Amino acid sequence: MPDPEDGQVLIRHSHLSLDPYMGSAIKGRHMSGKVLPGDVLPGETIGHVIASRHPGFAEGDRVISRGGWQTHSLAGAPAAGEAGMAAALSSGAHVLDVADGVPVSAYLGLLGMPGLTAYAGVVEMLAPRPGETFLVSAASGAVGSAAGQIARNMGARVVGIAGTPEKCAHVIDVFGFDACVNRNLPNWKADLRAACPAGVDAYFDTAGGDMLSAALGCLAMRARILLCGMMEQYNSDEVLAGPNLGPVLARRARIEGLVVYDHWHRMERWRALATDWLLTGRLAFKEHCVVGLEQAPTAFANLMAGRTFGKTIILIKD
Amino acid sequence: MPDPEDGQVLIRHSHLSLDPYMGSAIKGRHMSGKVLPGDVLPGETIGHVIASRHPGFAEGDRVISRGGWQTHSLAGAPAAGEAGMAAALSSGAHVLDVADGVPVSAYLGLLGMPGLTAYAGVVEMLAPRPGETFLVSAASGAVGSAAGQIARNMGARVVGIAGTPEKCAHVIDVFGFDACVNRNLPNWKADLRAACPAGVDAYFDTAGGDMLSAALGCLAMRARILLCGMMEQYNSDEVLAGPNLGPVLARRARIEGLVVYDHWHRMERWRALATDWLLTGRLAFKEHCVVGLEQAPTAFANLMAGRTFGKTIILIKD
Repeated sequence: MPDPEDGQVLIRHSHLSLDPYMGSAIKGRHMSGKVLPGDVLPGETIGHVIASRHPGFAEGDRVISRGGWQTHSLAGAPAAGEAGMAAALSSGAHVLDVADGVPVSAYLGLLGMPGLTAYAGVVEMLAPRPGETFLVSAASGAVGSAAGQIARNMGARVVGIAGTPEKCAHVIDVFGFDACVNRNLPNWKADLRAACPAGVDAYFDTAGGDMLSAALGCLAMRARILLCGMMEQYNSDEVLAGPNLGPVLARRARIEGLVVYDHWHRMERWRALATDWLLTGRLAFKEHCVVGLEQAPTAFANLMAGRTFGKTIILIKD
Repeated sequence: MPDPEDGQVLIRHSHLSLDPYMGSAIKGRHMSGKVLPGDVLPGETIGHVIASRHPGFAEGDRVISRGGWQTHSLAGAPAAGEAGMAAALSSGAHVLDVADGVPVSAYLGLLGMPGLTAYAGVVEMLAPRPGETFLVSAASGAVGSAAGQIARNMGARVVGIAGTPEKCAHVIDVFGFDACVNRNLPNWKADLRAACPAGVDAYFDTAGGDMLSAALGCLAMRARILLCGMMEQYNSDEVLAGPNLGPVLARRARIEGLVVYDHWHRMERWRALATDWLLTGRLAFKEHCVVGLEQAPTAFANLMAGRTFGKTIILIKD
């Protein structure tokens, strides 16, 4: 166990978040940096300060930081002036004020990076209008479930794509989507067209590949498509061919790329809005909590294979 | 030879334009409609009124209309209130005022639909800023040569892609591009990267497929990509797989579809600007004129195979 140096704190982690971007980082293809053999795997953590040599932190403070896949970590305060990607990937710790009625773990999901991703993509970029059809892939996941609910709260008709009947039912019953298509059924592309009879006005894509191709086949005129993740590529060692772009032309559609780091300065705005929605029943979330850091590799493999349901959080034992 | 009915004129064609969209129309995949065996092939024509039963036209008037691949056609006046796609595909004829110093055929190319396509894509959509790198495929063609020159006149650094050394030389020497890459050289993708050392800020794509993939590999941050045509697909009986969209995400790029019909109301504005530029040496164009309607099938096959150089116009003999 290391001792903190001047300006550092020692943190005991209680929660570790697992996110798909880690798969790209392991493959050396993520903008946050390469992970090499022997490195600690990256990841956002919540924990308590157990030793402090920084005047901004006291023992017992609850903090959020990028502590990685380990039980304890050392951190300083964030460097002054960090913004965007530097702020998002900062090695510094922040004292975490947990709102009454909100579980701590939500700050790694709905009220953290995945939720901010959904907020930026829906509110700042796709901007669905009342009555429009809003489609999102991985609809039961951390980003997708938040994106769909934000769009619904803005008045859109929301359709999801998920991978099991149980996920689809939850997406409709708990997240309040209007429809959800099971992409593991043989006729799911026909189901998708049937669920979007007026076409898709806005598509929030976390999957790429086959799901993006299917969505491009259902576009309404002047549809907007947001590329936010490429799960199908994260799992592949090859660079996959992309979808046919013909319908983008014919439908005068627009494709944009979303990188959440560009929106990091909006985190407080999103947390305030989401906390209000959460406490007034306008927003729900689902977590897949796994106890024990030693379960993280299996949980991560399940996450990347689409076998998890909701935001994956590792609860770290004392 | 038919006689005009009340409200119609009989036109003898002098010029027929050949354009790539006709290939999709023949395959039944174009938004302007299907061409069936026995139908007259569509196409924009210039000609003279040789018999008039419409008060708006006199014998001898020069008119522009969609007369198709034939020596003569009947037409009425455009229907009142036609706009957008209906105006672009109108069966009506317009009296054509040819500006002093401008060749008649230019109204089928630079001052017609292909020129308007370039104007809408560059001025209204991609909006290159001074010093930005602007890339265009099929750079010696009707749309590409106009697009690159408009971008140059707006202050951009302009790079083209063309298919022969002769085309590349013309693109640089006559159209005033800063560079032009020959896509039939084995290392052309490396040449493209070398020609765009700061990355591509705006890409005007008329090709799709391999050229779009190559451009996506050279994007600057927040690049804009405009899909205007998919020549590689027009020639294929299969729907081709599209390019990998990963760089669109990482570079926060934006992809949009351009359909010139949406910009038809801007034709007069474009013609005024282009005529001024043309007469003051700020705009050039190249035509591939073929004499004789019977040459149209061969000329069209050459156009679709990339063997032509400049806007293809059929000069129809008396």
